[in-house]
Amino acid sequence: MLKKTSLALLVAMGSLPSQAAEFILTDASAGSDVGNWQISNGDLGIDSPAPFTVEKKRLFGGKQAGVDIIVIDNGVMEITLVPTRGMGIYEVKSGDLRLGWTSPVKEIVNPAFIDLESRNGLGWLDGFNEMLVRCGYEWTGHPGVDDDGFLKSLHGRVQNTPASMVKVVIDEQPPYAIHVSGEVSEKTFKFSDLKTEMTLTVIPGENSFALHDELTNLADYENEYQIIYHGNFGTPILEKGAKFSAPAKEVSPFNDYAKAGLKDWQTYLGPTKDFDEMVFNIMPNADENGNTLAVLHNAAGDQGVAVGFNVTELPVLTLWKNTDTLKQGYVTGIEPGTSFAYNTKYQRPLGLVPTIKPGETKAFNLTYTLLQSRSDTRQALDKVEAIQGGQDTALREEPLVALP
Amino acid sequence: MLKKTSLALLVAMGSLPSQAAEFILTDASAGSDVGNWQISNGDLGIDSPAPFTVEKKRLFGGKQAGVDIIVIDNGVMEITLVPTRGMGIYEVKSGDLRLGWTSPVKEIVNPAFIDLESRNGLGWLDGFNEMLVRCGYEWTGHPGVDDDGFLKSLHGRVQNTPASMVKVVIDEQPPYAIHVSGEVSEKTFKFSDLKTEMTLTVIPGENSFALHDELTNLADYENEYQIIYHGNFGTPILEKGAKFSAPAKEVSPFNDYAKAGLKDWQTYLGPTKDFDEMVFNIMPNADENGNTLAVLHNAAGDQGVAVGFNVTELPVLTLWKNTDTLKQGYVTGIEPGTSFAYNTKYQRPLGLVPTIKPGETKAFNLTYTLLQSRSDTRQALDKVEAIQGGQDTALREEPLVALP
Amino acid sequence: MLKKTSLALLVAMGSLPSQAAEFILTDASAGSDVGNWQISNGDLGIDSPAPFTVEKKRLFGGKQAGVDIIVIDNGVMEITLVPTRGMGIYEVKSGDLRLGWTSPVKEIVNPAFIDLESRNGLGWLDGFNEMLVRCGYEWTGHPGVDDDGFLKSLHGRVQNTPASMVKVVIDEQPPYAIHVSGEVSEKTFKFSDLKTEMTLTVIPGENSFALHDELTNLADYENEYQIIYHGNFGTPILEKGAKFSAPAKEVSPFNDYAKAGLKDWQTYLGPTKDFDEMVFNIMPNADENGNTLAVLHNAAGDQGVAVGFNVTELPVLTLWKNTDTLKQGYVTGIEPGTSFAYNTKYQRPLGLVPTIKPGETKAFNLTYTLLQSRSDTRQALDKVEAIQGGQDTALREEPLVALP
Repeated sequence: MLKKTSLALLVAMGSLPSQAAEFILTDASAGSDVGNWQISNGDLGIDSPAPFTVEKKRLFGGKQAGVDIIVIDNGVMEITLVPTRGMGIYEVKSGDLRLGWTSPVKEIVNPAFIDLESRNGLGWLDGFNEMLVRCGYEWTGHPGVDDDGFLKSLHGRVQNTPASMVKVVIDEQPPYAIHVSGEVSEKTFKFSDLKTEMTLTVIPGENSFALHDELTNLADYENEYQIIYHGNFGTPILEKGAKFSAPAKEVSPFNDYAKAGLKDWQTYLGPTKDFDEMVFNIMPNADENGNTLAVLHNAAGDQGVAVGFNVTELPVLTLWKNTDTLKQGYVTGIEPGTSFAYNTKYQRPLGLVPTIKPGETKAFNLTYTLLQSRSDTRQALDKVEAIQGGQDTALREEPLVALP
Repeated sequence: MLKKTSLALLVAMGSLPSQAAEFILTDASAGSDVGNWQISNGDLGIDSPAPFTVEKKRLFGGKQAGVDIIVIDNGVMEITLVPTRGMGIYEVKSGDLRLGWTSPVKEIVNPAFIDLESRNGLGWLDGFNEMLVRCGYEWTGHPGVDDDGFLKSLHGRVQNTPASMVKVVIDEQPPYAIHVSGEVSEKTFKFSDLKTEMTLTVIPGENSFALHDELTNLADYENEYQIIYHGNFGTPILEKGAKFSAPAKEVSPFNDYAKAGLKDWQTYLGPTKDFDEMVFNIMPNADENGNTLAVLHNAAGDQGVAVGFNVTELPVLTLWKNTDTLKQGYVTGIEPGTSFAYNTKYQRPLGLVPTIKPGETKAFNLTYTLLQSRSDTRQALDKVEAIQGGQDTALREEPLVALP
Repeated sequence: MLKKTSLALLVAMGSLPSQAAEFILTDASAGSDVGNWQISNGDLGIDSPAPFTVEKKRLFGGKQAGVDIIVIDNGVMEITLVPTRGMGIYEVKSGDLRLGWTSPVKEIVNPAFIDLESRNGLGWLDGFNEMLVRCGYEWTGHPGVDDDGFLKSLHGRVQNTPASMVKVVIDEQPPYAIHVSGEVSEKTFKFSDLKTEMTLTVIPGENSFALHDELTNLADYENEYQIIYHGNFGTPILEKGAKFSAPAKEVSPFNDYAKAGLKDWQTYLGPTKDFDEMVFNIMPNADENGNTLAVLHNAAGDQGVAVGFNVTELPVLTLWKNTDTLKQGYVTGIEPGTSFAYNTKYQRPLGLVPTIKPGETKAFNLTYTLLQSRSDTRQALDKVEAIQGGQDTALREEPLVALP
């Protein structure tokens, strides 16, 4: 791969096996940003069976001022990434299927307008509306004063950190994979020196995409880290009778309120006033390589999403059922992670606050597949069943943590 | 009225009764902003007896970076609005009369640089310099930890929220009213989903303007709300011997310090070292439609302002006398509201924390009239007197709240 | 000197003794900013023996979005100033010598992305990477709740405040001094009305520069103020065997941890895992005019820096030895100030929280000289020795403050 040093310079590439066109859209080390920008398969002279475009656009209006989004249209799906918000995925649209949800928060909020420590550490909720939010990496979970005396605000800082380096790489050989990468840093003198290289890869014409993230501890000291991949899905997938399936060793309620929903953990209510949220902690089963799959589908089974991840990277799974009314944000979260959503101080005793050594890199791989027919859904559910392999799922009545 | 969908597109209108030209300057839903922009009656082909211009301008320098202002010149007055600061009114100038004040804070501060929770919730003071500040709508009043355990920062968040949608509508029939509207949202997942459509209307050649605000609760739950229209006036109106008049049932000191000023509640000192501030809580009288008027005028009675409001919308009135030295900010606040300036937890027992139902809209209407002659002032005072109708004003010695 | 009222307008000047060209780059009072800009001696028609350029550039990428830097190249040195971060000096480069350090924080962070009160008041560390950081002026020192009940965040707010007015003045007579000035305001209604006019002056071809800062209290009340000029130096000067020298009456450890390093206060370790930081409080000696000099040089004595200041302005000196590993930020701070680095509440009893009267201006003058040969270093050390004049330096074993 040839690295272009100038911003978004298109270079016709030779015939090397790894030939690809690379476009640097934002580069903090050079202090530069390309501004509004777009490229298509036609611009690249690629005769892709599915046409594609990648566009970067700066937003304005309210708390969006200065936010950059990148829209990838791969011919069958439109994926909206938000470099300014830690490379989060705002939404994915394909025909009448949408991955994402309708939050009361409508704007894509510039982190400059967010005070994570407001409302006792709930400031993150001022900007929460994406399909995919990374909760980490310095810490994750509910806000609270940790053992070190510091307030750990809800779900960490990475989603409210603008990407330092953003680039688009397009393979110039079939299947012409499109890779959009962002480097997001969490750096505080004496506290944190984490860099995460986040890459989304999508093939033109395909109805799935992959995330490959590499978290590196640039510090000379071992540090704790945590990550939850907070994937959020509302209508049209989520509805009364929608169903969640995942290979599971054990499922337990997050807190006392969720106890009442334990036996129905796999099914969903329609929009329900006063429901608020129920959260379930899942210990997933996986295949011999650690791979596993969580599936959410609608009542008819013809629309859904399958989330693939690896339990050697992301050993636990949180299921967040926020089936309150549509206006409140009718949404469910499928959240593979190193950790559950408790405050860090509660997760250490559970062994769910891993550490990362100096110079070490941890990789996290996830796939999101759109299910657009009964057959798609059946295939995904078959995989879940195969991984579970007939084992029992223990329903543990008591939460893992006795919250005060 | 015809809505233009493109930004600031001028369209010549037909002869319909409601004919008007509409210009969208900022639209978060489209992610767009028109940048610097201006329009005049000449551009519109309007042969207005008083010429007018409306100009949008982006500011730079210090903490102003990226702040938008809109200046309306209606031929006799220049009104400066600040979309980036919740559609606040920075100042109104007409000849040698100015509505506004001289704060130590000189810049029009971008909310991105403000941390409302700093200094125990006094961060709002880092940007306070406008003639008209909306204090609300999620809460208002002095900072403090409320009954729900959350710090309510001084006077809420709306003034430090950039407008999501800004438009200018100009009637193309006499009297060619100019309407500048901004939509400002307070949205936090699980906490708040308030939208306020704020419209300032001014007629070319007239020395008054009107505010019409519509607050809507977009959530599916009933919520508390509060609003104070914090109007602030310094020189040339405020001076030794300036006088405040309003139809009042009862006046009481906000706290112990203000007790000493109760009997002189209607008159002002000149700039006074160590005065700090005295605040009075007024229960206003109104006419049979709920309309009432508060008047501030200078010693000679030839310069002043009349603030009209409706007690069915804004039942109480705070009078803030900050007659400290000129450099500290010599200013008085005339503040109609749903509430006084106590922290929310003290206002609930007073019945001054109203609620708004799901989908409900509350309207607030105010008028500000410049008084530029003894005759103007006399007319305004006559209205005050007529509303009071000879009733007594009770001077209550004890504050409504016994502050700790 | 003729003040140009338009932005960056170049005006050919006459032959007055004070002839100079002035360029306003940013002016909050006019709401304007010149954007990217540069000037050279050639543009000015100045036949300087050493060519020079001054360039203003806006940065992007990550948390740099919207940050302005000014790079002065005086023919032998390149000085990078950051108007958006309180006119801090990011670095100074000359040949293979660099004043500055390598912080884990790589970007030049826009204060819009910083929450000073995060991590119990340590938010300042999210942006700390400059060679010269002003810590003040409202307060300085370690975070903590002060006697007034307010959290004083680490090292005050001025470095995270964008300059309101930025100008470049170039003398048009030899030696063609270049002056870059920024006005940085700390303004909070009822709390603070401080303005600091900060000027960096450098002569083309010379290897030193001067800071002249004027702090003015614009309020009508006397207020406390504090300032530490936090100058930070890493490689190539700092290394095992590097040495610090300053005329000193007394040296004491900041805290118990630093006691172990007291006898070696003048020498440095190489990068040392788990060293963290040791801080020493120095009471400097000075010449009959109050001038004194602190010198840091490498082991060979051929690279270093000399920091000149005046003890009537800055009576105390903090030496910060952060000789942890290179990646953690291997750095030492030479920090003349009104105060040490304790929280304000501990410095009042030490008499190190001075006050500034209404309208009063306090001036602070510092010089930074690059030492680029043994002879340069020898000269600087000779001055130190001459000021010390054979007096003893008392090593006080106990910290001035018994921290809890």
